[in-house]
Amino acid sequence: MAQNIYDTPKFFEGYSRLPRSIHGLDGAPEWPAIRALLPDLDGKRVVDLGCGFGWFARWARQHGAASVLGLDLSHKMLERARNDTHDSSIDYRIADLESLELPEAAFDLAFSSLAFHYVADFARLTRTIHRALVDGAHLVFNIEHPVYMAAVRPQWSVEANGRKTWPVGGYAFEGERTTDWLAQGVVKYHRTIATTLNTLLDTGFAIRRVVEFAPTAEQIAAAPQLADEMERPMMLIVKAQRTD
Amino acid sequence: MAQNIYDTPKFFEGYSRLPRSIHGLDGAPEWPAIRALLPDLDGKRVVDLGCGFGWFARWARQHGAASVLGLDLSHKMLERARNDTHDSSIDYRIADLESLELPEAAFDLAFSSLAFHYVADFARLTRTIHRALVDGAHLVFNIEHPVYMAAVRPQWSVEANGRKTWPVGGYAFEGERTTDWLAQGVVKYHRTIATTLNTLLDTGFAIRRVVEFAPTAEQIAAAPQLADEMERPMMLIVKAQRTD
Repeated sequence: MAQNIYDTPKFFEGYSRLPRSIHGLDGAPEWPAIRALLPDLDGKRVVDLGCGFGWFARWARQHGAASVLGLDLSHKMLERARNDTHDSSIDYRIADLESLELPEAAFDLAFSSLAFHYVADFARLTRTIHRALVDGAHLVFNIEHPVYMAAVRPQWSVEANGRKTWPVGGYAFEGERTTDWLAQGVVKYHRTIATTLNTLLDTGFAIRRVVEFAPTAEQIAAAPQLADEMERPMMLIVKAQRTD
Repeated sequence: MAQNIYDTPKFFEGYSRLPRSIHGLDGAPEWPAIRALLPDLDGKRVVDLGCGFGWFARWARQHGAASVLGLDLSHKMLERARNDTHDSSIDYRIADLESLELPEAAFDLAFSSLAFHYVADFARLTRTIHRALVDGAHLVFNIEHPVYMAAVRPQWSVEANGRKTWPVGGYAFEGERTTDWLAQGVVKYHRTIATTLNTLLDTGFAIRRVVEFAPTAEQIAAAPQLADEMERPMMLIVKAQRTD
């Protein structure tokens, strides 16, 4: 079973104070880049793997989705998602992505934001998603970028000239990485980009788009601290399609 | 026109002393990983983009290729390639990948080793290759990994505890990067992994495999200095296929 860090009071309180928790999708700088990869949602049956507070589920319904199944491990997040949602075509359920079961050919789009890096067995998960999608359906997800995950510590190094660099180490060593972020001992799983993409290919997905999120000039002008994200790739966004 | 650094005497002399120049393919630790991605060569018409001393051209012929066209910008490298080759089905020609022209649907495999990062206009090059391949043909290539290219200097940082880290900076800033390696002022072009893959996708290639080369335990046992390559991804190997 995956670690349920989101139900840890300290983590939940910290996470609830993040801009993305207060402002939803528009509080997440990567959202425009993700949105640009989404197919037309009209009439689509959507599953959101790691739905959190339900921001995407509600957005998808507002943009034509027929139904959304939002899955999350966190009781606290789903409690708030249910409170914030008044839509009988959105269903929230507790689910562990590590042992997820989904009905066959039941969805037209699988979506996931910043959840897959908590999953140890990505191959099992992609097989489950593949089986749950109809032929031609898309999987759009983002994760912490493997280069971001592979830092020897989640902090910038500062060169003698003041320039920030991101201290990559152990990139080829995949598996569990424990960091302190909002709470101590947050367990995530590092996989290389190659493993992430090849796992999808092996499962029967075609790769349609790969995005290493970087802020736009407009985003940096509005939020200067985002300039740091030009120095290292922080998030990996993938659009894949079931083709068999 | 691409910089012709290989014909600079100091660079050529240094390059000629590398294990891969002396021992050929077996002197390149990434070769087994590349070889594993190659399709059956039997009867194939092969183009090798940046063929250097012709090691791959000769290997391909020994493994069943019908013919190999080896292209390189360096007169010195092609001179040695011609001297080392006694095979009328291998043709070496001077060519600049920046302005390359190839006949249409004339090849069954395009191969390139450590050449594309010298090319400024990768989109033009991929279109040229796509047009030159028959439908279903593969493109297998490796480049310096974008994370390797994106270091603020091509040297390890050393943490207080002695651990080496790779100082990534400016990853999202694509374009020319000048480094000193064998000679001063070697010009290469940094592109993100996403740009590399999306350029192929946009051109009409499907992505079949992505490998971020890391040495095997056996390779490290035989050459302990290779252990450093577990810390950072040094080479990106891609297998793509023309599908339309």
